[in-house]
Amino acid sequence: MQRSTRTLISVDLTRSARSQPVLHNRWHPDLLPVASVHPGEVFRVECVDWTGGQIANNDSAEDVLNVDLTQVHYLSGPIQVEGAEPGDYLEVEILEIQPLQGHEWGYTGIFDVKNGGSFLFDYFPRAAKVIWDFEGIYASSRHIPGVRFAGLIHPGILGTAPSQELLNKWNHREADLLATDPDRVPPLAYLPDHKGSFLGALENNPGVARRIAVEAARSVPPREHGGNCDIKNLSRGSKVWLPVYVPGAKLSVGDLHFSQGDGEISFCGGIEMAGAITLKTKLIKGGMALHGNLRNPIFMPGPVEPRFSKYISFQGISVDEHGVQHHLDATLSYKQAVLNCIDYFKRFGYTGEQIYLLLSSCPCEGRVNAIVDVPNACCSISIPTEIFDFDVTPKNGGHLVKITTNCPVQALPAKL
Amino acid sequence: MQRSTRTLISVDLTRSARSQPVLHNRWHPDLLPVASVHPGEVFRVECVDWTGGQIANNDSAEDVLNVDLTQVHYLSGPIQVEGAEPGDYLEVEILEIQPLQGHEWGYTGIFDVKNGGSFLFDYFPRAAKVIWDFEGIYASSRHIPGVRFAGLIHPGILGTAPSQELLNKWNHREADLLATDPDRVPPLAYLPDHKGSFLGALENNPGVARRIAVEAARSVPPREHGGNCDIKNLSRGSKVWLPVYVPGAKLSVGDLHFSQGDGEISFCGGIEMAGAITLKTKLIKGGMALHGNLRNPIFMPGPVEPRFSKYISFQGISVDEHGVQHHLDATLSYKQAVLNCIDYFKRFGYTGEQIYLLLSSCPCEGRVNAIVDVPNACCSISIPTEIFDFDVTPKNGGHLVKITTNCPVQALPAKL
Amino acid sequence: MQRSTRTLISVDLTRSARSQPVLHNRWHPDLLPVASVHPGEVFRVECVDWTGGQIANNDSAEDVLNVDLTQVHYLSGPIQVEGAEPGDYLEVEILEIQPLQGHEWGYTGIFDVKNGGSFLFDYFPRAAKVIWDFEGIYASSRHIPGVRFAGLIHPGILGTAPSQELLNKWNHREADLLATDPDRVPPLAYLPDHKGSFLGALENNPGVARRIAVEAARSVPPREHGGNCDIKNLSRGSKVWLPVYVPGAKLSVGDLHFSQGDGEISFCGGIEMAGAITLKTKLIKGGMALHGNLRNPIFMPGPVEPRFSKYISFQGISVDEHGVQHHLDATLSYKQAVLNCIDYFKRFGYTGEQIYLLLSSCPCEGRVNAIVDVPNACCSISIPTEIFDFDVTPKNGGHLVKITTNCPVQALPAKL
Amino acid sequence: MQRSTRTLISVDLTRSARSQPVLHNRWHPDLLPVASVHPGEVFRVECVDWTGGQIANNDSAEDVLNVDLTQVHYLSGPIQVEGAEPGDYLEVEILEIQPLQGHEWGYTGIFDVKNGGSFLFDYFPRAAKVIWDFEGIYASSRHIPGVRFAGLIHPGILGTAPSQELLNKWNHREADLLATDPDRVPPLAYLPDHKGSFLGALENNPGVARRIAVEAARSVPPREHGGNCDIKNLSRGSKVWLPVYVPGAKLSVGDLHFSQGDGEISFCGGIEMAGAITLKTKLIKGGMALHGNLRNPIFMPGPVEPRFSKYISFQGISVDEHGVQHHLDATLSYKQAVLNCIDYFKRFGYTGEQIYLLLSSCPCEGRVNAIVDVPNACCSISIPTEIFDFDVTPKNGGHLVKITTNCPVQALPAKL
Repeated sequence: MQRSTRTLISVDLTRSARSQPVLHNRWHPDLLPVASVHPGEVFRVECVDWTGGQIANNDSAEDVLNVDLTQVHYLSGPIQVEGAEPGDYLEVEILEIQPLQGHEWGYTGIFDVKNGGSFLFDYFPRAAKVIWDFEGIYASSRHIPGVRFAGLIHPGILGTAPSQELLNKWNHREADLLATDPDRVPPLAYLPDHKGSFLGALENNPGVARRIAVEAARSVPPREHGGNCDIKNLSRGSKVWLPVYVPGAKLSVGDLHFSQGDGEISFCGGIEMAGAITLKTKLIKGGMALHGNLRNPIFMPGPVEPRFSKYISFQGISVDEHGVQHHLDATLSYKQAVLNCIDYFKRFGYTGEQIYLLLSSCPCEGRVNAIVDVPNACCSISIPTEIFDFDVTPKNGGHLVKITTNCPVQALPAKL
Repeated sequence: MQRSTRTLISVDLTRSARSQPVLHNRWHPDLLPVASVHPGEVFRVECVDWTGGQIANNDSAEDVLNVDLTQVHYLSGPIQVEGAEPGDYLEVEILEIQPLQGHEWGYTGIFDVKNGGSFLFDYFPRAAKVIWDFEGIYASSRHIPGVRFAGLIHPGILGTAPSQELLNKWNHREADLLATDPDRVPPLAYLPDHKGSFLGALENNPGVARRIAVEAARSVPPREHGGNCDIKNLSRGSKVWLPVYVPGAKLSVGDLHFSQGDGEISFCGGIEMAGAITLKTKLIKGGMALHGNLRNPIFMPGPVEPRFSKYISFQGISVDEHGVQHHLDATLSYKQAVLNCIDYFKRFGYTGEQIYLLLSSCPCEGRVNAIVDVPNACCSISIPTEIFDFDVTPKNGGHLVKITTNCPVQALPAKL
Repeated sequence: MQRSTRTLISVDLTRSARSQPVLHNRWHPDLLPVASVHPGEVFRVECVDWTGGQIANNDSAEDVLNVDLTQVHYLSGPIQVEGAEPGDYLEVEILEIQPLQGHEWGYTGIFDVKNGGSFLFDYFPRAAKVIWDFEGIYASSRHIPGVRFAGLIHPGILGTAPSQELLNKWNHREADLLATDPDRVPPLAYLPDHKGSFLGALENNPGVARRIAVEAARSVPPREHGGNCDIKNLSRGSKVWLPVYVPGAKLSVGDLHFSQGDGEISFCGGIEMAGAITLKTKLIKGGMALHGNLRNPIFMPGPVEPRFSKYISFQGISVDEHGVQHHLDATLSYKQAVLNCIDYFKRFGYTGEQIYLLLSSCPCEGRVNAIVDVPNACCSISIPTEIFDFDVTPKNGGHLVKITTNCPVQALPAKL
Repeated sequence: MQRSTRTLISVDLTRSARSQPVLHNRWHPDLLPVASVHPGEVFRVECVDWTGGQIANNDSAEDVLNVDLTQVHYLSGPIQVEGAEPGDYLEVEILEIQPLQGHEWGYTGIFDVKNGGSFLFDYFPRAAKVIWDFEGIYASSRHIPGVRFAGLIHPGILGTAPSQELLNKWNHREADLLATDPDRVPPLAYLPDHKGSFLGALENNPGVARRIAVEAARSVPPREHGGNCDIKNLSRGSKVWLPVYVPGAKLSVGDLHFSQGDGEISFCGGIEMAGAITLKTKLIKGGMALHGNLRNPIFMPGPVEPRFSKYISFQGISVDEHGVQHHLDATLSYKQAVLNCIDYFKRFGYTGEQIYLLLSSCPCEGRVNAIVDVPNACCSISIPTEIFDFDVTPKNGGHLVKITTNCPVQALPAKL
C-alpha cells in the first residue's frame, strides 16, 4: 500500500554533464524523451546546476570569468507526458525543491561584459562570484557578511518543447533583432549555435545531432513555452500552465535557484545550485483555445514563500544617469531603482559588487508601480529588512555600521 | 491632557476647487505655504479628488471624455515643516487615510486617446468610466459585477517643492524629450502650461501667479522629489523619505486612491476619490548626503495591507503583438502580460474595458521577474483570486461562469 | 446617484451615557429597538466606551479603582433587522471601525481585586491604568515607553437579544455556579442586578424598566448569542454569524477596542475607546438548523489585520507556581505562559504592571498548542517582536536595554 | 572548500526501533550520548515515527487499537552539545525537516479510550486511523476526501535531559496527581514504567538499564525542558531556547509531524511520520538566570509557515454539553469550539471521526480569545477555508456538497 515518490531522472555530480544523456541544453521538437509520466503521477527530477558543474565552491571568480556559455543551460528531460497533444495546457505543480544532499551550497556571479555581461554591465563589467552556504532553509555567504535569509527556492527554467513552426518563428525574430546591431557587446540575442550544444540521447547519432544543433533554440530567454522565465515565485506549491506544442509535451526543467531577487540582475544570478524538484502534471485538453490563446504561460505562486513584514524600497524613474529624459521606460526605471539601492547600501561598507550580487540573490521585489505618468515610469526594488543583521533604515547621523569582509568579493581583470 | 489629531487643511466638496486657496496644481518653489507643522506633530489633511470634482457618480463617461487635464492634479498644501532645510530628508509617516464621510465612492476611467490616453491607448482609445462604492474597507462596482476587494488606500501624490535649479532641470529635460516627437498623440510629456494652472494663495497676485504658472512643473510624472509616484504600497502605516530642496520643505499631498493596481494602467487609474490623510513628519538633517545622494525617494510599506493568499499570474515577454522581437523592454513585457490577462478574463464574459479598468484598480501586482535573459525581459501581473466571486483558475472544459452587467461600461465615441 | 453610509446611531461624548436612550447595558428580549435596518444596508453606529465615560485621559488610576461596574457595558442598540426571525443566522459584516474624530485615545486598566479583579488578580491585585495615544493606525503610550503597534481594532461586544427562554437558562446556570462559592472575591459570576442597569428608551417607563432590570442578563460574559466575546480578530472586514432568538434579531454593539491581546488578561483590557463601527447584515433563513445547531457563533477574520513576521513565544504547562501538577488545565497553562512572559520582560526594566497591561493590549496571540499530552496542556503567548523599539530575543550576556518611564504606571493602594 | 550538512544520527526503518541504540524512549540524566556536536555546527538527525513503526500504511485501525503505548515516544539522541552546562540556555535552530525519501506518508489516529484515549474520548471512544500521502509540501488522504493542505512540518518533541533533581520533582508531582483518581480511564498521568522502556546504548548493561527504567520519566507530557510540546509552529526556520540541566545538555528529538492542528486533539495526532530534521545549536551561557529563570522554554516561529488568508472560526464557552456553567475553563471552552466545528462539518457528509482527525492534522489555530469575562472563557478553533475543495462558509439553503468516501474511516469495536 505504501506509495513513495518516484525518482524519474537522476544525475551524477561527479561526472561530466555532457556524459549524462538525461540532460540537454537546447530547445527542439525532435529531442528524445528520457522518461515518461502519466498525468497525476508525482515524480522527482534531479538537476545539475545550469552550467553543468563549471563553477566551484571557492573564492576565485576565474571560473565565472571563463565560463563556457555556449553550453548553458543543462536541463533535465525532456519528459513525455502521456496523452498531451498540441493545444492542451500542461498544468505543472511544483511540489518540492531541495538541494541535493551533500551539496548544500550555491553561487551567484557577475559575468564579464565580454562573456555574457549583466543588467548593469556598464557599472560592473568585471567577473565576480560569491558562494552561499545553505543551512536548511537559510542561505548565508562568507563573501557578503551581515545577511542571511530563507530561500525562495524555484526552477529558473521549466518549459515544453516548441513545435518546428514555433522554433522557426523564434529563430527568425531573434535573428532580426540581432541584425540591428550585430557587434554589440554583450550581444542582443543568442542565436542557435552548434558549438557547445548537447542534445542528450541524440548525441549517439552525430548526423541527426548536428542537423538539430544548428537550429535548436538557445535556452537563454523565456519564450511562449515558458523556458528561462526566472520567476522567483514559482516556488514550492506553485502551479504553472504551459502550452503544449508537440505530442507528449516534452517537458524539461533545470536552472534551479535556492533564491533569487526579481530581475535576477547579475545574470549568473539567483543562487545557482544542483538539486531535485518534485512535480505533478495534469492535462487541460484543448486548454489554450478555451482560455484565450494567451501568448505566455499562466501561473499561481505557492503558499510557503518566506514571510517578511518590512521592506525598504528604492524608486527609479525614466531619467538616466546622465539626466536624459526617456519615455515610460520601465527597464531604465528599474535600473535607476537598483542603482539607488546600491548607492544606499554602500554606506554600510559594502562594495558595489556585494550589493549587486545580493540584490540578484535575495528575495527582493521588483515592481512596476506606475507606467502611465508620462514621461516617467516609476519602478521600485524592495528589500526585506530582516535579511540584515543590523538596522538599515535611514537615520539621523547616518549609519554607524561598517561591514568588513574577511573573504572579499573580487572583481577580476577584464576578459581578454 | 486629551490630545486629538489636528485637521490642518480642510476642503469643501460643494465648492469649486479653484476657489479654495489651500489647493494648488503645479510644482514650484515659490508657492505660498498654507499651513505649518513641527516635526513629530500628527496632522490631518483633507484632499479633493485629483480633478477637483470634474467627475460625477453616474453611469456616463462624458465627464471623463471631456475632462480638463490642464487642471490636474489638485493637491493640498504646500505645508511648511519647521526646521527643514535643503539637503535634509523629510521622513513622512502615513498614519491613516479615509474617504470623506458622506462621500464613500470613487471612480476609475480610461481617457480618450486624444485627451490623455492610457497605457493601452492603442487597444482602448475611447473614454470609459466605472464607479466604485465603498463599504468600509471594501470596494465594489455596479459596472464590474463579480468582484469585491479590500482597498489598498494611498496617496497617488506626495512630494516636496523643487528648488528653482531642480525645476529648471525638469523643464529642460522634458522639453528635450517632447521635441523628439512634438506631435505625438498622446504627447510624450506635459510641459508647463499656465492654462488651467491654480497656484493657491498666489492667485491673489495675478502678476506673480502668471510668472510662476509659465514655468511651474506639471504634476503628471513622478520625479526626484516624489510627486505622482502612484505607488499603491504607500498605504496606512508606511513611511517615505523625501529629499528637501527648499527651506520648509513645502510638502503637498493629493490624488488619493482607495485602491490601485501596479502600473495604474488606465491613467485615470486606481480608484480616484476625495479623502483625508493623517501624517507625521520627522527631519533627518543632512540626510541626503549621509545616505548616498539618491536620485529618488526611499519608502517602507506599512503593516496593514490587504492579505491575499492566492494570485493568478500572467507573463509577458519583449515580443510585441506583431511578433517583433525587442531587447529587454520591460514596458513592452508588462504590456504583453496585461494583454494576456485581459484576453483570459474576457472568457468569463467581461468586456476588455471592464478588465482593463479592474486591473487599474484592484490590488494586483506588477513584477519585473527577469531583466537579463536576452532578448526577453519577463514581467508579470498577478491578480488576487479572492477578489472574484467565482473560481478563475484554468479548468478542463473552460469556464462556465458568464458575467452579465446590468449597468455596462460604455466606451464613448472618439473625442473630436 | 451618490450613495453614502448612513449613521444609524449617534452618541454624544459630552453627555452622560445614562441620558442617551440609544444605549443600554443589559441583555433582554424586551428592550426597545432604537433603529431599524434592512439586510444589505451599510450603516454606521457610534459607541461610547464600555464604562460610559467613567475613565479619563490622565495619569491616575483612581477612576479605574472606583469604577462602577454595575453600569457596564454601555452598548449601542438594539437594532431591528427587518425580516429576522428566530432560527435564522444573522450574518454581520464588520466593514470599518474608527475612533471618533477628536478622541484619538484609549485606556487599559487593571481592576482592584475587590472591584472586578483580573486574570492575574493574585499577582496584580491593585488598580492601575495606562493611556494610549492613537496616531492613525498606531498606538503608543506615555506609560509604557519603547513600544508602538498597529491596532487590531474590533468590537469587544456584538450580539443579538436572547429569547426569554434562553435568558432564563443563562440566569439559572450562572446562579448555580455562583452558589458554589458565593463569597469568592472576585465573584464567580455576575447575576442580574437592577442597580446600575440602563435600558435605553425603556427607562421612560420605570415600572417596566424595573421588571426587566431584575432579570436582564449582565453583559460581562460571552454567551450563545455572541456578546462579550472579546475576539481581537473580529476586525475590519470580518464576518460573524449570530443566532437569531427574537423577531428582528435586536442587534447591539459596543465595547470597542483599538487593539487587544488574546485573553484580554487585565479585564479592563484591550485598548478601550469610544468609536464608530460600520456594519452590514444579511439573513440566512433557518440557518441554525441548516448548519448544525451550533451552540456558539461562527466567524471569519478579515483581510487587513496587522502583519508581523516575527514573534517571541512563551510556553506554560499545567503545573502551578507552587509546583502542583494539574490535569490538562489550559487556563492554568495560559496563566503560566503569561507569568513567564512577564518575568522575561521585567529584565528590560519594565514593571510587572506595564507588561501585564501591554499583553492585555497589544496584538499578541494566545494559543492552545496541545491539550492531550497528559497531564500537561501546553499553551503559549506570542508577542510580535516588532512592537518594541529594541531587540527582545535572548542574548549572550543578557539584555542591556533598561527602560525608564517618565510617567510610570502606579498601582494604587487597595480598595477599601 | 565544499561544506555539506553532516548526518549525525541515521535510522533504519526496516529494522526494529528497539535494535537501534541511537534511539530511546524515556527521559533520564544518565542516558548515554550517541553523538556530539559543537555549537554552530549544522547537523541532520533522522527519526523513526513516535511508535517505532507500530503503525502501517493500510486501511485498518487494528494497529492503532493495539498500539503498545509503553514504548512511546522513540526519540533520536541524546546529543551531547560541547560546552553546555546547567544554567545555560541551549538555542536550537530548526533549519529543515523532511520525510525520509521513499517514505512519503504519515498517519493520524484516535486511540481507544482504554488504550490512551484522546481529547474527546467521551465522544470518540473507539480507535480509528487515516493515512496521509505526501506530495512534496502537500498532504491529502484517501480517508478524508475533499481536503488537501501544505504541511506545517515540525518535531512534536525536542528536549534536553532533566537533572536528577528535576526528574524527581516530575515524578513526585505526577504521582500526586495520579493518586487523586488512580483508576481513571484514561489515566490522569503516565508514571515511570520499566515495561516498554528502551534506553539506547544503556540496554547493553541490563542492571543499569533496569535501575534507570524504573525512574526515567515518560515522554508523554511537555515539561520544563521542552519535551512533548507538540507546538505546530516549531517549523522550518524556528528557534527554541531550552534550559540546560546536565553537562552537555543531552538533546533529544523525535515525534516528527508533517502537520498538526493546535491542540493535537486526537492524541495520536498531527500527521505522524518518520523523517529527518536539520538543527544548529548555540549556547547562551548562564542564560536562564539572565532571562528571568522562566519555568518553560521560549521560542520564535519560522518564516515559511503556510500562508492562508481566510479562516472559518468556531467559538466555545465554559458551558458544558449538559448546560452546566463552569468558571473560566479554557479546556472546556476549547472542547466546545471543537464540538461546534465537528457538528458544522458533518453537514457536508463527513463523519465525526473524519473531522476529528482532520482538526488534529490540518494547520488549524486554537486560540484563547478571552479569559476574564466571568464566568465564560472564550476559545476558538479556526480552519483555513482553502484546505477544502469546496466553499465551506454558511449559505442560504445550507450546503449542497455531500462528501462520500470510497475508503471510509472506520471506528473499531471497543478494546477488550
